[in-house]
Amino acid sequence: MKVLWIFAHPEQCSLAGSLMAEGLRTLDALGHENRVSDLYAMGWKAVVDADDFGGPSGSSGPSGSSGPDRDRLFIGAEQERAYEYGALSADIRGEQEKIRWADTLVFQFPLWWFGPPAILKGWFDRVLVQGFGFGLQGPDGRTLRYGEGGLAGKRALIVTSVGARESGFGPRGIHGQLDEVLFPLLHGTFWYTGMAALPPFVVYGADRLTRDGHARGADALRERLRTLGTTAPLPFHHENGGAYDEDLVLQPEFAPGRSGLGVHR
Amino acid sequence: MKVLWIFAHPEQCSLAGSLMAEGLRTLDALGHENRVSDLYAMGWKAVVDADDFGGPSGSSGPSGSSGPDRDRLFIGAEQERAYEYGALSADIRGEQEKIRWADTLVFQFPLWWFGPPAILKGWFDRVLVQGFGFGLQGPDGRTLRYGEGGLAGKRALIVTSVGARESGFGPRGIHGQLDEVLFPLLHGTFWYTGMAALPPFVVYGADRLTRDGHARGADALRERLRTLGTTAPLPFHHENGGAYDEDLVLQPEFAPGRSGLGVHR
Repeated sequence: MKVLWIFAHPEQCSLAGSLMAEGLRTLDALGHENRVSDLYAMGWKAVVDADDFGGPSGSSGPSGSSGPDRDRLFIGAEQERAYEYGALSADIRGEQEKIRWADTLVFQFPLWWFGPPAILKGWFDRVLVQGFGFGLQGPDGRTLRYGEGGLAGKRALIVTSVGARESGFGPRGIHGQLDEVLFPLLHGTFWYTGMAALPPFVVYGADRLTRDGHARGADALRERLRTLGTTAPLPFHHENGGAYDEDLVLQPEFAPGRSGLGVHR
Repeated sequence: MKVLWIFAHPEQCSLAGSLMAEGLRTLDALGHENRVSDLYAMGWKAVVDADDFGGPSGSSGPSGSSGPDRDRLFIGAEQERAYEYGALSADIRGEQEKIRWADTLVFQFPLWWFGPPAILKGWFDRVLVQGFGFGLQGPDGRTLRYGEGGLAGKRALIVTSVGARESGFGPRGIHGQLDEVLFPLLHGTFWYTGMAALPPFVVYGADRLTRDGHARGADALRERLRTLGTTAPLPFHHENGGAYDEDLVLQPEFAPGRSGLGVHR
């Protein structure tokens, strides 16, 4: 396997850093190739702006956006145009090259405000542009999304640490059921671009972790990495598999009478 | 009312920019004071790092973090310590001062990867530090969260634009029911810090909006702002109101037999 490990933590000298080191050693021992994007160490630029597109907006290539909806078209269309013309900035192209190389992506980050740190959110915003991660069409003209798309065939794993106890992230826990809190990543980003979303790997109680707890976390991570290629992904429905109607609403025979994020698996 | 409008869009010359201008005019006409944080125009720094804390880590004040869990303690404890000692960087202190002044916060952003752009995620990561937004204790030693906390008494409104049609964000829509997709913000950030979360204001189909559609969006926004002080917030449960047990799990008499994010309102 070819694993790209995206690390979004300010310090390598940390629980997270030692977990990554342990993870990379495990991948080596298993004979899996691996590459690392350590976003803080790389000084990764988090914010989408005109510098991403190889110049001022509209300076080259077709744009065609005007009128009251120019804002939405501007970013998406500029990203797509720059991708098509090879004009995205070098740091973005470097990450896209790593993604093309990989068959598996690991995203390791501390859960801040129930989501990824800004530096990782900006990696998604800047790297997974239209034409690369999504916005592709099949031979029949269908848009390829949710189970199909630019990153189809790859697998994605979240490795995260949270300060809270596990019970608070359970099915009725106050912080919200974890796989639904992470829906924007698991379903809205991984599955949207075609990647199979693996069940997240979580270290709970990271604020109060003892040395024993840390060792147990490392053991559990090693086990997850051993089964990286065989673990069943979250069973989300394919957009084009018959589960959704033309308005993109789940057909009544799926999860009948229910609503909310849980109906999509 | 005193409204702080946080704007996280790369261009003012856009649908979003014209909606903000319309919104600010409406607030003026209603006699509400308002201030703006235009994050792109301010060159807002998105990424939490040691520069936020007034110097290298551990250079002053009590820190007390060591051992395998140092990473988690480092960021949270450094933020809390720097807040207590007035050592947070000037841009962060400026935003905290605006929040103290305001009774209502409006967050306007395009929905990217089903969440806020990195520049806004970084505003939450950097500004809402422990000791300011959360981590406070009541007289009886209870932690004040979810309905209580540093920002209790304020109201928060999301104003967002999405490219997709509304049906895809409905209760069984493929993109996920919108108030559950936004749960990390509405419940995990606003309600967590004590703010009442108002129902989000959404412009759908923003990629294909006609001039008429734009005018309807502006009309609807004016109406939402007219009722800013009276709109009922999302009815999330208080952490300390009896709905949750000691493990922070919802008591069985609430939403009996159900699970997932929808049980918390």
